[in-house]
Amino acid sequence: MKIATIRTNRGTQAAVESADGWAALPFGDAAELLRSQDWRKTAEQAISSPEALVPAEVVELASAVTSPRKVICCGLNYGDHIAEMGRDLPEHPTLFAKYADTLTGPHDDISVAGSRAVDWEAELAVIIGKGISGVDAHTAADSIAGYAVSNDISMRDWQKRTLQWFQGKNFTATTPLGPWMVTADEFPDTPVFTVEGWINDERVQHGDTSTLVFPPAELVAYISRFTSLSPGDVVLTGTPGGVGSGMSPQRFLRSGDVVRTTITSLGELKNVVTINDD
Amino acid sequence: MKIATIRTNRGTQAAVESADGWAALPFGDAAELLRSQDWRKTAEQAISSPEALVPAEVVELASAVTSPRKVICCGLNYGDHIAEMGRDLPEHPTLFAKYADTLTGPHDDISVAGSRAVDWEAELAVIIGKGISGVDAHTAADSIAGYAVSNDISMRDWQKRTLQWFQGKNFTATTPLGPWMVTADEFPDTPVFTVEGWINDERVQHGDTSTLVFPPAELVAYISRFTSLSPGDVVLTGTPGGVGSGMSPQRFLRSGDVVRTTITSLGELKNVVTINDD
Repeated sequence: MKIATIRTNRGTQAAVESADGWAALPFGDAAELLRSQDWRKTAEQAISSPEALVPAEVVELASAVTSPRKVICCGLNYGDHIAEMGRDLPEHPTLFAKYADTLTGPHDDISVAGSRAVDWEAELAVIIGKGISGVDAHTAADSIAGYAVSNDISMRDWQKRTLQWFQGKNFTATTPLGPWMVTADEFPDTPVFTVEGWINDERVQHGDTSTLVFPPAELVAYISRFTSLSPGDVVLTGTPGGVGSGMSPQRFLRSGDVVRTTITSLGELKNVVTINDD
Repeated sequence: MKIATIRTNRGTQAAVESADGWAALPFGDAAELLRSQDWRKTAEQAISSPEALVPAEVVELASAVTSPRKVICCGLNYGDHIAEMGRDLPEHPTLFAKYADTLTGPHDDISVAGSRAVDWEAELAVIIGKGISGVDAHTAADSIAGYAVSNDISMRDWQKRTLQWFQGKNFTATTPLGPWMVTADEFPDTPVFTVEGWINDERVQHGDTSTLVFPPAELVAYISRFTSLSPGDVVLTGTPGGVGSGMSPQRFLRSGDVVRTTITSLGELKNVVTINDD
């Protein structure tokens, strides 16, 4: 199943893809759907007997979830990206937080003010479907509702102002997430995805999740040891090599650049970037 | 005015201190009150004609706010603490995030599992009363609803596992906040508070906010340049010298230790710590 958050004239709503388009559901976004009782059954029923249908050609997609309580990100998780950043393979995942309003839609423009070093990070996103706390990797795997595509657009100048990356990672509406969530039941327990990032027509990132130091279930289990995760929460699993700040010379996004982020079986994000550097 | 979040048999509620006790208000917590229209008038009316009164002797206080959308913390903000951590005075504030469920009540036990390096950080907390984005320090000052006491209890072993402090700062229910918020109108524009931390009967931290590198309004204005702040959000302003990991030899909390955190005019937190180190 593909579950999305769509924009309607009543705000955002959760929706599930049916044969004839997106079937809207009475939840403010896909995270709210995931927090409801038996979300899977609700979605399956809407597929078989959809009430409010929006044709796929005209649907406007929001961030796959808009109301997660937590968006926890892993840095330095692909061997090749770790090498390009000049670091050793880690014993523990490097984690940092985003707030929900950092997210934006899969086709939204990304507008950044006050940074001269806007960089890209194509990432596999994991969306949680069950509340967990202190669980092992097996239970963590079972808590994953599905997968989506994300790009952890990073303001490297702000990120590197201090030791903590937070401020360069939390500009409002700069992290596209979508285009939808594909439910985990469509994949094996440890799925392998190919993650690619494109700037205009040039492929700049290419990795596959078999090289993750901390695969999704292990990462989710690790996080659950110190903080709980709830349905609708998002875990970003890190980016493969090929970010602009790792290039020589360094390369950053310019106004008008089109950032495309693709993951096999999951879909594509396509965002035009505008930089206001006053 | 003193505004708190109290525990009742219907869950938590916002409350304001009146002459005869705490006047409960029809909001789930003080952050929800702050997000309502004209919260100040609502609170003032409840003081003059309280409906549901809870005597101060029996009131059970929760975290000053329980539903902030953001809890943004500043590290390395007092000159003396920066020196004890062996760093230079910063040009920009070092910021990191907590989620709301990291907060706990002013008299709650703090239970930590899986850390051998639980440390203390007495801090002045700022609570936001108006939505802001991209504002100057003057407007930021005007957005501050009030002040409270906090202790950014930190699991140093987890904090130092990677470059990012997040995981050592986000253990569930480890950051006491309270005992209430004192509204900003009771203080001058740039109030000076004395912040003290005590372990059992020993004073281990002592600083005053006149030595802050980034005072509250400047800190809030800086944050608003990249992310918006909403009513009920919390900004922790950093800790003065005297943390356990800065001592020689290093000293950490043990089960049964009583952590007291006091700020002049604001009140006292008193939390008993339990460490489960399996």
